[in-house]
Amino acid sequence: MSKTNSRTGVWIIGALGSVATTIVVGCEAIRRGIAGTAGLVTETSPLKEIGLVEVGDLVFGGHEIREGGLLESAREIARNARSIPESLISAVAAPLEEISKEIRTGTALHCGESIQKLWAGAPEAPVRPVEAAERLGAEIEAFGKRNGCSRVIVLNLASTEPAVEPNEVYDDLEGFRKALEDPESSLPASVIYAYAAIQGGHPYINFTPSLGASIPARIQVADARGVPHMGRDGKTGETLVKSVLAPMFKARNLKVLSWVGYNILGNRDGEVLSNGPNNLAKVRDKDDALRRILGEDGLHTSVRIDYVPSLDDWKTAWDFVHFEGFLGTKMSMQFTWQGCDSMLAAPLALDLIRLTDLASRRGEGGLLGHLASFFKTPTGVSEPAYYRQFDLLLEYARSALKDMSTPRKAPSR
Amino acid sequence: MSKTNSRTGVWIIGALGSVATTIVVGCEAIRRGIAGTAGLVTETSPLKEIGLVEVGDLVFGGHEIREGGLLESAREIARNARSIPESLISAVAAPLEEISKEIRTGTALHCGESIQKLWAGAPEAPVRPVEAAERLGAEIEAFGKRNGCSRVIVLNLASTEPAVEPNEVYDDLEGFRKALEDPESSLPASVIYAYAAIQGGHPYINFTPSLGASIPARIQVADARGVPHMGRDGKTGETLVKSVLAPMFKARNLKVLSWVGYNILGNRDGEVLSNGPNNLAKVRDKDDALRRILGEDGLHTSVRIDYVPSLDDWKTAWDFVHFEGFLGTKMSMQFTWQGCDSMLAAPLALDLIRLTDLASRRGEGGLLGHLASFFKTPTGVSEPAYYRQFDLLLEYARSALKDMSTPRKAPSR
Amino acid sequence: MSKTNSRTGVWIIGALGSVATTIVVGCEAIRRGIAGTAGLVTETSPLKEIGLVEVGDLVFGGHEIREGGLLESAREIARNARSIPESLISAVAAPLEEISKEIRTGTALHCGESIQKLWAGAPEAPVRPVEAAERLGAEIEAFGKRNGCSRVIVLNLASTEPAVEPNEVYDDLEGFRKALEDPESSLPASVIYAYAAIQGGHPYINFTPSLGASIPARIQVADARGVPHMGRDGKTGETLVKSVLAPMFKARNLKVLSWVGYNILGNRDGEVLSNGPNNLAKVRDKDDALRRILGEDGLHTSVRIDYVPSLDDWKTAWDFVHFEGFLGTKMSMQFTWQGCDSMLAAPLALDLIRLTDLASRRGEGGLLGHLASFFKTPTGVSEPAYYRQFDLLLEYARSALKDMSTPRKAPSR
Amino acid sequence: MSKTNSRTGVWIIGALGSVATTIVVGCEAIRRGIAGTAGLVTETSPLKEIGLVEVGDLVFGGHEIREGGLLESAREIARNARSIPESLISAVAAPLEEISKEIRTGTALHCGESIQKLWAGAPEAPVRPVEAAERLGAEIEAFGKRNGCSRVIVLNLASTEPAVEPNEVYDDLEGFRKALEDPESSLPASVIYAYAAIQGGHPYINFTPSLGASIPARIQVADARGVPHMGRDGKTGETLVKSVLAPMFKARNLKVLSWVGYNILGNRDGEVLSNGPNNLAKVRDKDDALRRILGEDGLHTSVRIDYVPSLDDWKTAWDFVHFEGFLGTKMSMQFTWQGCDSMLAAPLALDLIRLTDLASRRGEGGLLGHLASFFKTPTGVSEPAYYRQFDLLLEYARSALKDMSTPRKAPSR
Repeated sequence: MSKTNSRTGVWIIGALGSVATTIVVGCEAIRRGIAGTAGLVTETSPLKEIGLVEVGDLVFGGHEIREGGLLESAREIARNARSIPESLISAVAAPLEEISKEIRTGTALHCGESIQKLWAGAPEAPVRPVEAAERLGAEIEAFGKRNGCSRVIVLNLASTEPAVEPNEVYDDLEGFRKALEDPESSLPASVIYAYAAIQGGHPYINFTPSLGASIPARIQVADARGVPHMGRDGKTGETLVKSVLAPMFKARNLKVLSWVGYNILGNRDGEVLSNGPNNLAKVRDKDDALRRILGEDGLHTSVRIDYVPSLDDWKTAWDFVHFEGFLGTKMSMQFTWQGCDSMLAAPLALDLIRLTDLASRRGEGGLLGHLASFFKTPTGVSEPAYYRQFDLLLEYARSALKDMSTPRKAPSR
Repeated sequence: MSKTNSRTGVWIIGALGSVATTIVVGCEAIRRGIAGTAGLVTETSPLKEIGLVEVGDLVFGGHEIREGGLLESAREIARNARSIPESLISAVAAPLEEISKEIRTGTALHCGESIQKLWAGAPEAPVRPVEAAERLGAEIEAFGKRNGCSRVIVLNLASTEPAVEPNEVYDDLEGFRKALEDPESSLPASVIYAYAAIQGGHPYINFTPSLGASIPARIQVADARGVPHMGRDGKTGETLVKSVLAPMFKARNLKVLSWVGYNILGNRDGEVLSNGPNNLAKVRDKDDALRRILGEDGLHTSVRIDYVPSLDDWKTAWDFVHFEGFLGTKMSMQFTWQGCDSMLAAPLALDLIRLTDLASRRGEGGLLGHLASFFKTPTGVSEPAYYRQFDLLLEYARSALKDMSTPRKAPSR
Repeated sequence: MSKTNSRTGVWIIGALGSVATTIVVGCEAIRRGIAGTAGLVTETSPLKEIGLVEVGDLVFGGHEIREGGLLESAREIARNARSIPESLISAVAAPLEEISKEIRTGTALHCGESIQKLWAGAPEAPVRPVEAAERLGAEIEAFGKRNGCSRVIVLNLASTEPAVEPNEVYDDLEGFRKALEDPESSLPASVIYAYAAIQGGHPYINFTPSLGASIPARIQVADARGVPHMGRDGKTGETLVKSVLAPMFKARNLKVLSWVGYNILGNRDGEVLSNGPNNLAKVRDKDDALRRILGEDGLHTSVRIDYVPSLDDWKTAWDFVHFEGFLGTKMSMQFTWQGCDSMLAAPLALDLIRLTDLASRRGEGGLLGHLASFFKTPTGVSEPAYYRQFDLLLEYARSALKDMSTPRKAPSR
Repeated sequence: MSKTNSRTGVWIIGALGSVATTIVVGCEAIRRGIAGTAGLVTETSPLKEIGLVEVGDLVFGGHEIREGGLLESAREIARNARSIPESLISAVAAPLEEISKEIRTGTALHCGESIQKLWAGAPEAPVRPVEAAERLGAEIEAFGKRNGCSRVIVLNLASTEPAVEPNEVYDDLEGFRKALEDPESSLPASVIYAYAAIQGGHPYINFTPSLGASIPARIQVADARGVPHMGRDGKTGETLVKSVLAPMFKARNLKVLSWVGYNILGNRDGEVLSNGPNNLAKVRDKDDALRRILGEDGLHTSVRIDYVPSLDDWKTAWDFVHFEGFLGTKMSMQFTWQGCDSMLAAPLALDLIRLTDLASRRGEGGLLGHLASFFKTPTGVSEPAYYRQFDLLLEYARSALKDMSTPRKAPSR
């Protein structure tokens, strides 16, 4: 049936995580009309008019390294973060159980100790990266077929891997292929997943700070194959505010002397980040935009992330901005952001899925630069100011809108 | 001499106020190379490349209702707010004494009790508004002649007057002219000053929330005469941040439920605002942009201003933003802005002078819409988002830059 | 049965309010072992060792002017404030329904418009205060008998009444009696309830800022009759912090120049307080301790309360303390308190019930000064510093403990 | 002359630091009646009535490892922190120059790299600790004689040394003496200074987190010799607030889940602390009181200190307290402390000098436990709550007051 054939599948890496669970609960609740669409950028004008897939029509599956199911995970969220109401979960308990059957065991190769501790069941057998990728790819493929999906979008929501130093292996396609075959290679899981996705022709979105497809070799392949992809690291809270506020100081010629951010959080992500190397990966991304907006000259910045278990999903950030105005007078601004991380991330991830689905249907491939505003470190986009990034999306939407009203020529590729 | 003939005069209403004093101290310090230009928007690219008058070349005078001189006023700032260094004031003591001689007694007609309390010396004689305007206008005129200025820009920095209810008198030119002649009329001082300025052909900038030229009848006259003018209420601190942050919530489809702001300040402005009616005028302006950006639907906003003497010029604001995200989860952001008001306002006022001077030289008249980003309630401009307003200025600058590089035709007027 | 005869009844004025509902839900949950005792001062040493009544053994009833029942009220809290978990409410649904049957219609005489708006059903018939008191008293009496209570403690949790100006009527017992009989008298409901309670020999606790028993004439009667009573206004959040922090500045000789507090809240209490006169009653109490701790000299304080509906029960307060240290240097401290009001108030009210019950059993009558630390304006206690007030309670507990270990003489009454 | 013979000398280790400079400027300004005594605990009742030495009568000298003089140091403070007014410094310029002549070169043995970088001039010659101590002691002795002091109080204000692991060398007097003679020993400078002071019979106060006299062996010697001494680490800001607030949560049975503190500062102390091991020493002291007040059970705490140069002396701290109340509801409190460190520390150091001088005159020796409230880690006092510590001082003052009014017997030693 044509209806069935046009379904869009979503394959989530980290399928039992808090963000993934919130996505699935949210979609099922919206489908039933018992939840609103606040937080979804794609439900605002003009984005809601460009023919995006309905969130209630998405089909979910994914990889996970922990045990359990979505219902259990949702109830844990209700109990600990008190964010999703218990009654809402009860109302979607049946589909959560159903979707849990589409979850397969993933891989935690070279993810660092903090992540590997989460691994459930028998230890992962050592395999060459390419073998792992083939197995993962086959599972994605089977999911799409089983559910009659015309396309499957792969979304990385797994915990942050340790920061990887720039490495020539990843710059060069040949080197990368060798690494894939090398049983001793240290290719991290996120790269293997990204390889599996793109190799299978599946659009790929990296919502985490992990490498994923953001390496020159991966980008080359994806572009060559015309697979839409974008990353890295969803811009959900403190960094969003930074990229909104910093251009104000610049525009007003108020010299920012210091901008320090202190982030505390208590979810599984926080636990993984409390590990030094994983923390570094995150901190690097959070600070970068600031330096690009304000310039390096005399600017002091720092970002700290501490694990505070009692906060659970309520990521809290305190930022202190010290700036110099007229006649050298030092002034300050401070803000405290208290956001429920999964509730901020889930709708953005859904936005990305819908927009990537559209890009795919419109025949667009390679890096989706117009999605830059969703990411802390948008691959291939140098503009760091939020509103300028958002303008890229608005322009895209306006152009899509125009295309809808004019007879379409066949897509160019 | 052509040099002398092209000097730009600046006539400040409220010439001994904290902002006015900071402007003069700053210009003299910059001229001597002992202070930098932080806080001046016009010292950033591309604005600094469009041929603006040097701040060190401005000539100052003004009206004031209090007694004293600029040196005394500067020392009071150093002592109370500890913002301007004592040694900087000593270095410009001589010019401060000199400029103080160019200050004349202003008017406080219908400014409300809080302002009239500040009046020094013998009580103001009751006069018809038109007589007051003629006297004020003659003093501005004489200042310009005495100092060989080719133009005098009039800048309103006087304390906020009580809010005035919409009044048909101000809508209609005929009614306005009658009010000017009526000894019983309640035309407030700011309108009389604005009338005097525009009648004399002097560009006029209203940095305060008072009415000034922002009444339909005034705008008509100014436009008819081709006099450049703009207002109202400099956007220096908390309101600036609001107009930067609010569009972020809108763009992210995070439903703002409540946005409350609590402002405390201790300078003369605060003292005047502690009076109910004057407070109202200010509060109304601070809240307006928010409602226009976020929409009225279900939004609760409030702004409080309290007078806290010990803060002196250190205006401190706490804002609490309560918003709803995915699945109805309520989250919050709060910020504290601690700015030294005069240090924020003075460079912006200088920016406005320089840009108005340029407009005047370029033969532009009427409302200067491209200056919207400097104001809380930009007359005639409906765009409330800061960065969109700032784009208007950037476009203007780029266009001015292009004009500079192409042979100029004679200005159109 | 002796067990039945020694039961302690609790009669709550404002029985369907958020605090009352939380008290009942909490007691039922603790009784069933499905909730802990955090927040209960009487569960810490040495207070937990002095033979207090178990919270699970209390019997509840009360007066209310709104319609509805406790289960409905509890579910409203779960839905709006997301504070009480839905599953906890389900577990105690049956007793909530049962206790709701013990709620009678109260009075809203002279409570001001904001409170009278809440009145459900047919308008209250105008009656002389004494008649109202007799009716209310009879209902309390009947509740006690029906439930086999050896004593009934009356607890005022009703919304704040408008501030009442000092009034000689309340100073003099004779005048007070006349007012009771006078159909034109303006005696507010809280005074009538307090009269009814004390006249019936029931210990009386006023957790609100309303007058209640805190008038000289009432105190005289209670003392004469040996009825234990105490008030006013539970010290739950911001004021608690103030009474803890202010003595620090005093001890360190840091001169507090200004202390301003900005409180926002969205529950029914907030709605009532948004009305000017009711607000005044509250603000006066919140500010008093500060002036008594820090002295009047040169101190500027202010307290603002604004109604912000979206916050519901999450009372949020921002306090800014400006102080002067060595060599006149001005420094500051600011804090934000984000507390769920009912969750803070309910355990304190339970503490007061337990301690009043003990006092009653020990034959203590009149003002219970050792309970001062629980109140913003402890009647008859001038000590404003929290820890000094808390020491009074600790001393009392130690003395009670000593009495327990020594053979008791018969109580004096 | 008897007047001269009773003068009290103050020997400051770190004599050109910001706190030392502020102390000297302050004393000279108070002596001349051009500054008040805010911040001095000893100027409040009853402490100001117990016959303490006048701050204007103190005589200053000290050791320092950097070059320069007090006037230069004071002007640097005025320029960078804008805390001391320039005009105040000019008024005491002459005595600052005079007192600078009493500064001698100290030692930086085993102070860690961060401190040794500050060393001016030719590198310090390697000497045995005992030799260094003898030289330092002789200089203190000579200062006292030269200025006719009847006693010299030694005050450690030098930068924080790296944390030292518990070491049996310091537990045992014999081992300690060997270490003093050992050219290879790693005894840090603070211990050498403390040895020199106590060996010379000079009362010793350690206002820093460095070891100083706080090692068992040192304490034994001081006690044996009857030399008054006390330490460690002045409690000036965030830690003070912690030790005031934490007991409130305890008293209210609000379970603190997490208490995290983020400190940023930019003075020389901050620079030294940015070095890992020095930082650790500080952090350990800041956190200890919290755990002792609240208990270990389930409590998560952390303290971060970051160096933010632009803040200079304006130490800013953000603390977030996450606590659980009734029915498991999580609530929070956050505070921001913005204090000028030297302005807070200087008067406390003066308080300690005055009180130590009194103890010395009253013949009291050994640990001065009644000074506990001034320290983060009061040696020998286990009580962590601020107000309880302060009560020790009040009791001492009351007892001293009583002694003054009764005929004194000869001191017991």
